[in-house]
Amino acid sequence: MSQSLTLGFSCPDQPGIVHSVSSFIVTVGGNITESQQYEDRDTRLFFMRVEFDVEDSTNLETVRNAFAAVGERFSMKWKFVEESQKERALIMVSQYEHCLNDLLFRHRSGALDVEIPLIVSNHPDLEEMAKWYGIPFVHIPVADKAAAEVQLRALIDEHNIDVVVLARYMQILSQEFCADFAGNIINIHHSFLPSFKGAKPYHQAHQRGVKVIGATAHYVTSELDEGPIIEQEVARVDHAFTPEELAAVGRDVEAQALARAVRWHAEHRVYLSGKRTIVFK
Amino acid sequence: MSQSLTLGFSCPDQPGIVHSVSSFIVTVGGNITESQQYEDRDTRLFFMRVEFDVEDSTNLETVRNAFAAVGERFSMKWKFVEESQKERALIMVSQYEHCLNDLLFRHRSGALDVEIPLIVSNHPDLEEMAKWYGIPFVHIPVADKAAAEVQLRALIDEHNIDVVVLARYMQILSQEFCADFAGNIINIHHSFLPSFKGAKPYHQAHQRGVKVIGATAHYVTSELDEGPIIEQEVARVDHAFTPEELAAVGRDVEAQALARAVRWHAEHRVYLSGKRTIVFK
Amino acid sequence: MSQSLTLGFSCPDQPGIVHSVSSFIVTVGGNITESQQYEDRDTRLFFMRVEFDVEDSTNLETVRNAFAAVGERFSMKWKFVEESQKERALIMVSQYEHCLNDLLFRHRSGALDVEIPLIVSNHPDLEEMAKWYGIPFVHIPVADKAAAEVQLRALIDEHNIDVVVLARYMQILSQEFCADFAGNIINIHHSFLPSFKGAKPYHQAHQRGVKVIGATAHYVTSELDEGPIIEQEVARVDHAFTPEELAAVGRDVEAQALARAVRWHAEHRVYLSGKRTIVFK
Amino acid sequence: MSQSLTLGFSCPDQPGIVHSVSSFIVTVGGNITESQQYEDRDTRLFFMRVEFDVEDSTNLETVRNAFAAVGERFSMKWKFVEESQKERALIMVSQYEHCLNDLLFRHRSGALDVEIPLIVSNHPDLEEMAKWYGIPFVHIPVADKAAAEVQLRALIDEHNIDVVVLARYMQILSQEFCADFAGNIINIHHSFLPSFKGAKPYHQAHQRGVKVIGATAHYVTSELDEGPIIEQEVARVDHAFTPEELAAVGRDVEAQALARAVRWHAEHRVYLSGKRTIVFK
Repeated sequence: MSQSLTLGFSCPDQPGIVHSVSSFIVTVGGNITESQQYEDRDTRLFFMRVEFDVEDSTNLETVRNAFAAVGERFSMKWKFVEESQKERALIMVSQYEHCLNDLLFRHRSGALDVEIPLIVSNHPDLEEMAKWYGIPFVHIPVADKAAAEVQLRALIDEHNIDVVVLARYMQILSQEFCADFAGNIINIHHSFLPSFKGAKPYHQAHQRGVKVIGATAHYVTSELDEGPIIEQEVARVDHAFTPEELAAVGRDVEAQALARAVRWHAEHRVYLSGKRTIVFK
Repeated sequence: MSQSLTLGFSCPDQPGIVHSVSSFIVTVGGNITESQQYEDRDTRLFFMRVEFDVEDSTNLETVRNAFAAVGERFSMKWKFVEESQKERALIMVSQYEHCLNDLLFRHRSGALDVEIPLIVSNHPDLEEMAKWYGIPFVHIPVADKAAAEVQLRALIDEHNIDVVVLARYMQILSQEFCADFAGNIINIHHSFLPSFKGAKPYHQAHQRGVKVIGATAHYVTSELDEGPIIEQEVARVDHAFTPEELAAVGRDVEAQALARAVRWHAEHRVYLSGKRTIVFK
Repeated sequence: MSQSLTLGFSCPDQPGIVHSVSSFIVTVGGNITESQQYEDRDTRLFFMRVEFDVEDSTNLETVRNAFAAVGERFSMKWKFVEESQKERALIMVSQYEHCLNDLLFRHRSGALDVEIPLIVSNHPDLEEMAKWYGIPFVHIPVADKAAAEVQLRALIDEHNIDVVVLARYMQILSQEFCADFAGNIINIHHSFLPSFKGAKPYHQAHQRGVKVIGATAHYVTSELDEGPIIEQEVARVDHAFTPEELAAVGRDVEAQALARAVRWHAEHRVYLSGKRTIVFK
Repeated sequence: MSQSLTLGFSCPDQPGIVHSVSSFIVTVGGNITESQQYEDRDTRLFFMRVEFDVEDSTNLETVRNAFAAVGERFSMKWKFVEESQKERALIMVSQYEHCLNDLLFRHRSGALDVEIPLIVSNHPDLEEMAKWYGIPFVHIPVADKAAAEVQLRALIDEHNIDVVVLARYMQILSQEFCADFAGNIINIHHSFLPSFKGAKPYHQAHQRGVKVIGATAHYVTSELDEGPIIEQEVARVDHAFTPEELAAVGRDVEAQALARAVRWHAEHRVYLSGKRTIVFK
């Protein structure tokens, strides 16, 4: 019997990285099952993600320590994840329910292998849906924004949250919050960014007369709709679509883009390289 | 034996339009083979395109006169086109040859049923290609922009040009020119507008880290990259694409979007409704 | 105030049909809001769908009677539908829940404007889901196939069912059943038909090494996976997808194709022409 | 200054392969620029493709010899390719010119980095096109099939051809020919295989009423349209498309699928694993 480990890292590019990593894996008796790498010519950073199996009896602490030397040698930012360690996601939502429903359905059917300890909303509307899927729901009104974020931070802390998913959460988080959880907040914007930032993108799309609409899942930064893009999905439309019909088509596209982004993030397939993401699908 | 006519019009919406048009067609002994209509709720305009067959012996002047009364009654902007009347396109190009080659190949193989009396370029490079396809090529340097446009206007006049196609023509036409030929200049922009207007869109796309790129065929107005969109095409990309590789993928997408836009325009399928187009595919 | 009517018909093609229909609409004081038509050159049939508004006070019985003469004159198969008459769909399902969940979610959110009086399954598993969405659920085991169909027919009768939707129902219906409800049973097949008919299409797709997978929503006929296709959706895959991963991607594609097919059918946009469908989107 | 090498191989899967390959690369002073691997769970084969740079002064014969030991140890089928060694492609065509034109245009513009020493056709029609692109053209009539293949083999030999590209070549090659050049003949079939094998696929697609059409680039085996698929491309269509219009849309899809397949093959990105291909894009 074996257990599966995922190692992901980035570091300044130089010769010998892959060799050192593969030596390390041989040393711990590992067998590589999936491996991807990328050298970013803009940032001169090297990225790698490797999944490998080790004996069930292997002491993972020892594995980690063995890798630490490699990590140090190459100045890596690295992370080891065991199969059993599931990413813990807190979902935030307002009143649009399609993305929430999609995530919860995928979670329930096993297609989205994360833990969802909590749903937070600034509206009480979707409590019933959360309940049916068996996920605790907390209503945090935003009349007092600062107080709301204090409460949110406390919940993140209490539930050991790894990633916050904004599944059509229509409030803007504070700059401090975005900075503190940088790279761990995923938002779905209902347009093909950088087109149609800000409010009412389907109305903007209708007015501009575009023939394809899209949705963008991205990490949240303090700059609105400017964070690194993880995934985008598009759909063909024509002149006859009203803004409401664009929004209806858009709902499918949003749900798909967000679900993929959350899954890839949870599988440690997404790496930041400046304002861009490296996604090892 | 019969001949085919295409009637296209727009007018303020009101009841009875379709009935009057179909009455007219019955009157001239026509048989409808294709018909599309659209009521724009924003502009309150009604658009219709109908193809119908009439006897070969039918006097088309009579048909036109018969319709004039209908057109006047509903304040229509209308156009009758006979099967034999092909749209006359002047293609403008700089040094990128993919869109030109695509249009000329489609023209040669019969897939693009227009007449191309002339290719105009601000560079001499593509003369050989034009020659091989048997299309006259005129090199108009743009050192003196005003003089160049005078020459261009003279050629448009001389060759009875209906539509100017900018197949990666990298110069900006004057506001006067754009205004005078409004609705009859088609440009291909190498991005998914309104994203990445202006120069070097593939570099912009690379920097922004988008996961889908696109191209936009649009009518040219005096405002850069802001004209009514006729068609858009997209392609999926990922982090590993350099700006040059984005451009390579983009070339296919550009050629396809432009070819469709020109074909639809030439078949009188595209109508302007404010800043948007109605496209009866 | 006005009410909306939808008229759909097919008939042997001949001149004057559109004129007669538009005359009729003028006669009853109607205003056309959407209209599509198609002449099938293979079957020589003409198809038309027209939506129009009439005064709220209009007697619909009178409208129907007025059209009967037109219908008879052109040997039409025609149907009038009032805005308030919603298609009544019975959904059948086995154990895969993704298509059922998708239909019920769209129904609940208003995107799928049908009535769903009943869900029928040969397994008890999905009763909880049906209950949450507030739809009655009947478990009909299929140990005795004939008895099961008797019970199904009774339910269809009792609930005035218009259309039966097989949302991954894994049993084969009898030839008699298929014949009696021809054109009113929609199935989703989990392949891009006609590729991979029959069982385990994702395993077949994996073995054949296809680079794109698909799903097909079609009317059910007595010949397995051979009925007229209403909609198909596809997704790009690669060599690294296991049959299970193909199935996971396929679930999204199946749900989308089926949802569109059911919506178009419910909006009376789908017409049969031999073994093909005309879909007025 | 450095030179780029591409190493591709397959072998029975076992631990230590990647480590041995990366050790080898370190030994020869190489720096990995791109690397992909795949373990086929069905065939238990491991596939790897790695690009790496070595000093310009490096003796490539030495590199090859150094790798031979690794290859033998793991029972690899392996191949080293230097940057300057371009795949030599012979294109075969009948009368449809769109795929030929597309390949030649990409070749001319540098997007398809192969050598094309020769075009062979069973018709004289496309000689002019070949001439314009500056590629020798040989007309081999197929009245006597055996003689034609003798001549073809002689040309392949004479021109050191690596790969034969059937760019809508409408003749069937003999079983012996297919066997002798297995894995080195690429065909474009004008359907989404395995749908619509054999003749007139667009007519078959029209009759079946599909809503999406496709094209398939595949290696040729002695079994018609059954060879391993390299790439597929699709396009959405509807009921209104005649077989001729399906074919027109199909031409674009065919050209794209074939161009990608040829490029990937030429870049040594395609590996055979039973009846499937591994494509390291």
